[in-house]
Amino acid sequence: MSKYDKLVTNAAGRIVPTIINGKEAIPFMGVGKFKTAGRKAAPPLTSCADYPADGNKVIASLKEALVRCGLKDGMTISSHHHFRNGDLVAPQVFDAAKELGVKNLMWFPSASFPCHEPLIKYLEDGTIDHIEGSMNGALGRFTSEGRMKGLGVLRSHGGRYQAVQDGEVHIDVAVIAAPSADPFGNANGVNGPAACGLLGFALADSQYADKVIVVTDNLVPFPCIPWQIQGNYVDYVVVLDQIGIPEKIISGTTEVTKSPDRLLLAEWSARFCDEVGLIYDGFSFQAGAGGTALSIGIFFADILRERGWKARFARGGSNKYLVKMLEEGLTEYILDGQTFDLEGVRSMRDNPSHVNTSPFTSYNYHGKGNFSTLVDVVILGATEVDVHFNANVVTHSDGMLLHGIGGWQNCLFGKTVILPVPLFRDRNPVIREEVTTLCGPGELIDVIVTERGIAVNPRRTDLIEKMKGSSLPIKTIRELKEEAEKICGVPEQPILTDEIVAVIKWVDGTVLDSVYKVT
Amino acid sequence: MSKYDKLVTNAAGRIVPTIINGKEAIPFMGVGKFKTAGRKAAPPLTSCADYPADGNKVIASLKEALVRCGLKDGMTISSHHHFRNGDLVAPQVFDAAKELGVKNLMWFPSASFPCHEPLIKYLEDGTIDHIEGSMNGALGRFTSEGRMKGLGVLRSHGGRYQAVQDGEVHIDVAVIAAPSADPFGNANGVNGPAACGLLGFALADSQYADKVIVVTDNLVPFPCIPWQIQGNYVDYVVVLDQIGIPEKIISGTTEVTKSPDRLLLAEWSARFCDEVGLIYDGFSFQAGAGGTALSIGIFFADILRERGWKARFARGGSNKYLVKMLEEGLTEYILDGQTFDLEGVRSMRDNPSHVNTSPFTSYNYHGKGNFSTLVDVVILGATEVDVHFNANVVTHSDGMLLHGIGGWQNCLFGKTVILPVPLFRDRNPVIREEVTTLCGPGELIDVIVTERGIAVNPRRTDLIEKMKGSSLPIKTIRELKEEAEKICGVPEQPILTDEIVAVIKWVDGTVLDSVYKVT
Repeated sequence: MSKYDKLVTNAAGRIVPTIINGKEAIPFMGVGKFKTAGRKAAPPLTSCADYPADGNKVIASLKEALVRCGLKDGMTISSHHHFRNGDLVAPQVFDAAKELGVKNLMWFPSASFPCHEPLIKYLEDGTIDHIEGSMNGALGRFTSEGRMKGLGVLRSHGGRYQAVQDGEVHIDVAVIAAPSADPFGNANGVNGPAACGLLGFALADSQYADKVIVVTDNLVPFPCIPWQIQGNYVDYVVVLDQIGIPEKIISGTTEVTKSPDRLLLAEWSARFCDEVGLIYDGFSFQAGAGGTALSIGIFFADILRERGWKARFARGGSNKYLVKMLEEGLTEYILDGQTFDLEGVRSMRDNPSHVNTSPFTSYNYHGKGNFSTLVDVVILGATEVDVHFNANVVTHSDGMLLHGIGGWQNCLFGKTVILPVPLFRDRNPVIREEVTTLCGPGELIDVIVTERGIAVNPRRTDLIEKMKGSSLPIKTIRELKEEAEKICGVPEQPILTDEIVAVIKWVDGTVLDSVYKVT
Repeated sequence: MSKYDKLVTNAAGRIVPTIINGKEAIPFMGVGKFKTAGRKAAPPLTSCADYPADGNKVIASLKEALVRCGLKDGMTISSHHHFRNGDLVAPQVFDAAKELGVKNLMWFPSASFPCHEPLIKYLEDGTIDHIEGSMNGALGRFTSEGRMKGLGVLRSHGGRYQAVQDGEVHIDVAVIAAPSADPFGNANGVNGPAACGLLGFALADSQYADKVIVVTDNLVPFPCIPWQIQGNYVDYVVVLDQIGIPEKIISGTTEVTKSPDRLLLAEWSARFCDEVGLIYDGFSFQAGAGGTALSIGIFFADILRERGWKARFARGGSNKYLVKMLEEGLTEYILDGQTFDLEGVRSMRDNPSHVNTSPFTSYNYHGKGNFSTLVDVVILGATEVDVHFNANVVTHSDGMLLHGIGGWQNCLFGKTVILPVPLFRDRNPVIREEVTTLCGPGELIDVIVTERGIAVNPRRTDLIEKMKGSSLPIKTIRELKEEAEKICGVPEQPILTDEIVAVIKWVDGTVLDSVYKVT
């Protein structure tokens, strides 16, 4: 089987395969254009008669669990990134699969981290055929070099839920690492030595996988409350000594930026929002956990405090700054998809206004709406932006696949999307004629804030109108590009082959772009 | 179309149809014997592109909502009994359906109450073909008299979830009345003038119905937290002036029994549990909201307090007595399926250890286990018990269908099931040679407590052994029956026709018994 076949040019002008790892795929048709007519995936029915009446689903080992799940060649195993770079479970799952001699598995993580580099040996020896999920760092490099047997498929967090829900990806065995669980399989992320906050990325897997294994190092008596994952979806529970490395799960070092350039980006972003009237009593925002984004959140908090306003909700990734806003009454709710520090975990555990969300709730494009469209101000990053406001988050300008999409594509549906980005990184301009890899269509990206000026998407005539007479340096995107090139020179095109190594899915499951093998 | 066809004798020796309202049905095969091999129902996929980007799904009226949902002849409309006898929504739904001239609807309530008597006119004029759900009071009488066009189908709360999940019942339009909701459709039962506690009976409907309408009289800005029903499943939101009558939603009058006979039942039930060692530090129980059951709960609380023990969890229906136990530390959790008073609502709203459950979590037999099997002591009622410990909860001994099943069948899976029942009611013996209608197979019922003695199911040799030498009056079930007959005389058999008017489903979707037309 060839990795891919039948190339076409999609509505974004990108060449994409329509056969991916042997399965048909639909090329991107434009934002909101593809309408699915199908029905949701239908997992097998089960009977309580086949599950232990005492509710005790604990079995001895991961290996035994995989055997009982009927793991076979070519199956799909899913895992999740709740432990970020401290995950000790996914590597052990594939160690066990290797011991069992199973081949050509598809690994379907919600994201991958440097701690997953050991899986390269299983990609090399045929235990794993390919990854559908983010291929960060070493795994990205491995993919970019064309060394992965199957084709990589990158999806957003919402796209991952959509793909599972729609039956595009069938999960045979879901492995859900859980900081606390009971023998029935109820599980949460707020208690235990590996506390990570929530387990929302595993929701789709629990609902739709044929078999579900919960792995914990903190078994509590039934009922494990809150039951972020419900045991009624779970087949087996495995207890390990340690499932995650706390200091790598929680990044206690996430701090606001001290770089003067980044602080400027933050200040200008916040001022822009204020000047165009995006900040009001009851507004909502999603910033993120990077240094610049954190600083923007602090500017927002200052504005709210000063005027006696509060946000109706802030979307997490949560962190101590967001928790402080909640506790200070500057936001009524945190709608949280991922907790980034121990303050976030504590707040989610103890504060009912710090709400556990999932990609279903926040991001699934094949739902009856989702929350992404309700957020007033969304602050995102990018590796590249082009003169049409298209943006890239997965590859660097040398074509190397180094990042996942995360919730980035989903957040583009916010009411106003702002990308504060440096004009260049390592003398490499961020604003280009054309992005190396298209991850987000420019029509959804409203404002680019750089340290040399701010460009507003010409589609947003409302914002342009409101900024007339502002003291902020409003420029065109081409002006910003030229400024960057004046300093760094016109960037060379990356030297890429025409061999596709991965594809970028859009939020509706269509294929937005291809990632090419680097030379 | 005939109401039913192809009668067979099932594994319980009961005559049941295998064609019900034109659809095939499976006769009961014995507890745990029927194994389904199918897949879950697959609701249609939707796209966010078809839902308002501002998240505002509010439309003007119930009638408009039904039109937009494409309501047509023969469709199924579901509703829920969270408001018990104070429901103002279901009658208005069918008023609107009638105005639209739609015919032959199936009404699929999670339960019905006397307040639904006005629907009889729609059963008579052909707007509603039949009801699948409890047919209490006037609706039961209507059914028993053979006046319903289609065949009634009674299911337990868990069986209702199972039927929807399994695709046995396809809900075209679910109407979810919600004490609080936001314009996106997120909803809960803990806030607002019609606060009822939770909305768990509507979970299946939200997940599996083609179209979902949320109806509220308390619209709050997004996000409505907690979101017991998630807006991502909701198509339309309708705001009415009033959706429920608070004093009929919440029964503030639920009090422990003062009847000496019932107090004796309660005392003996609790003493029995204690003597056989069912009460221990960390045990669990489900009692219910009747006077006898409440009194048993108080006896349990006294025992725990005295010994410095606590229950791990108590299953609700919650009420002020259970809330007091939680707040006093006599139980660690309440796992609640239904709040019966304002104290229950308050506690569920404010106490994270008072947990909102659903029939999926607690009762669905086609899940990967459910919680019903984990409860140590279950106290239930019955209209009749027979010498094989079979029990009836839906008909009276005159054959009249007057009650629904509720969670009763599901709770039979508890570790020890105790039925405290009076030996007779209105000089009508409760213990009979054979139950009029079989709702629960005797193999699942362990102990019958009456005011004249306690009978233990011969299958429970462990309990019989432990009660040797007890001062409690342990008797055989036949002895109890004879005592009743000595006092009341041998009861006459009810005079029933051989025309079937309704069937009783077992928790696995098979047909357990038939209910016959009365003369």
